[in-house]
Amino acid sequence: MSDRKLIRLLLEHDLAAGANVMLAEAQAHYVIHVMRVEPGASVLVFNGRDGEWTATVQRVGKKGCTVALHNQTRAQIPEPDVWLAFAPLKRARIDMLVEKATELGAAALLPVFTQHTNAERINLERLRATAIEAAEQCERLTVPRIEPAVDFQQLLARWPTTRSLLVLDETGAGVPIAAALAQTASLPCGFLVGPEGGFTKSELDALTQLAFVTRVGLGPRILRAETAALAALVAWQSLVGDWRSSPQSPLAKSPLAP
Amino acid sequence: MSDRKLIRLLLEHDLAAGANVMLAEAQAHYVIHVMRVEPGASVLVFNGRDGEWTATVQRVGKKGCTVALHNQTRAQIPEPDVWLAFAPLKRARIDMLVEKATELGAAALLPVFTQHTNAERINLERLRATAIEAAEQCERLTVPRIEPAVDFQQLLARWPTTRSLLVLDETGAGVPIAAALAQTASLPCGFLVGPEGGFTKSELDALTQLAFVTRVGLGPRILRAETAALAALVAWQSLVGDWRSSPQSPLAKSPLAP
Repeated sequence: MSDRKLIRLLLEHDLAAGANVMLAEAQAHYVIHVMRVEPGASVLVFNGRDGEWTATVQRVGKKGCTVALHNQTRAQIPEPDVWLAFAPLKRARIDMLVEKATELGAAALLPVFTQHTNAERINLERLRATAIEAAEQCERLTVPRIEPAVDFQQLLARWPTTRSLLVLDETGAGVPIAAALAQTASLPCGFLVGPEGGFTKSELDALTQLAFVTRVGLGPRILRAETAALAALVAWQSLVGDWRSSPQSPLAKSPLAP
Repeated sequence: MSDRKLIRLLLEHDLAAGANVMLAEAQAHYVIHVMRVEPGASVLVFNGRDGEWTATVQRVGKKGCTVALHNQTRAQIPEPDVWLAFAPLKRARIDMLVEKATELGAAALLPVFTQHTNAERINLERLRATAIEAAEQCERLTVPRIEPAVDFQQLLARWPTTRSLLVLDETGAGVPIAAALAQTASLPCGFLVGPEGGFTKSELDALTQLAFVTRVGLGPRILRAETAALAALVAWQSLVGDWRSSPQSPLAKSPLAP
């Protein structure tokens, strides 16, 4: 992270040269009082659809703030399509999971209540705010979609049958993740990580009966749930996703390519 | 994580059938008052050298506690030899880094002060306690070695020239990590992750002149320092380390194998 990089802001408004966007009150407060952006200073803005633009901050009255758009700095490009379904965790760990999953490029986060899940409810609004802040900081052009929580049966019933579901399996019976990714690299993909208490036998049985499910292993140590979730995203990005090329180096041949 | 798994304790003492080990006062307090282990209950113990053993907790006086060893449950086996050098971070993030690096099987953690490092000192004792707790929970047979902090020049001067050093490079000029690991898979390996402010130009120049250094990239998003560190360890374990086989599934062919 450069120490001189510009503040980035997620907007809802369409972005185009000359657009002048009034910020919502909370965002204006964040820009003026938290980030202490001076009037006339440059920021970067994005909305998940129209790429990234330079803009200038302007004050309106005591509390208001607008941004005036100038030039597009990056075009919107397709982003990796990997989903993460996870059993909700206690506050500090679920916040960390959402922050890191955003940095690691997850397209969608799907909270799912399993039988051993400890958390009783989740605060979607807080998780969305965490994802937006992480997306602003990590220079993503989108924010991951965070779905309302569903229960385990609903998740499986609604899962698209054309998307492979790699279930992080701590029983030791899973396929090593690099091998599993090599087998499924051509398909859209999602991961499912269970709670600290693990999946129940009936849950594992239900998963094993589904053609789109592969049980995958992450080595001999027992990872915490959030570590396993992030590890899955890292392995996917390294082997299948957009970490296979560098902005300034030639596209490297994937080790998974034939 | 099974919800019925046994408490695991790191001991310093040699482990053998019939051994009876008096716990240090702080550990006895942890066992009796924090984990509320009842006298006569079973625990697992390890010391990083003699594998893992079952043992029975016994009380001695008001504050004392011994463990009586029975059977070895796992033999000591060689563990992955991957190092992580990192610029110290603020408290919550460095604690998280040490916890996760332990789960992810790092053999050694090497704090290094670079020019843009924000933290001024580190609490080695707290970090070692964090690593021990993580090793106990994740069922590791060892605890990562945490070295005293050195400055950037010392790190490079002392780095074994036969160990490849993969530097996490956020400038976009690095080789994609999977490709870099494919090139260096036969060598011992370590990673270096810089501070939030990045490496300075002179630091990057110094790194580039070393034959054992490869600059590696982790995709187009700007990862926080601790995310980058954990991502490097995950990629290494998936492609080179002990995640390539599962305890209960046949050794999978590595995508890096010729």
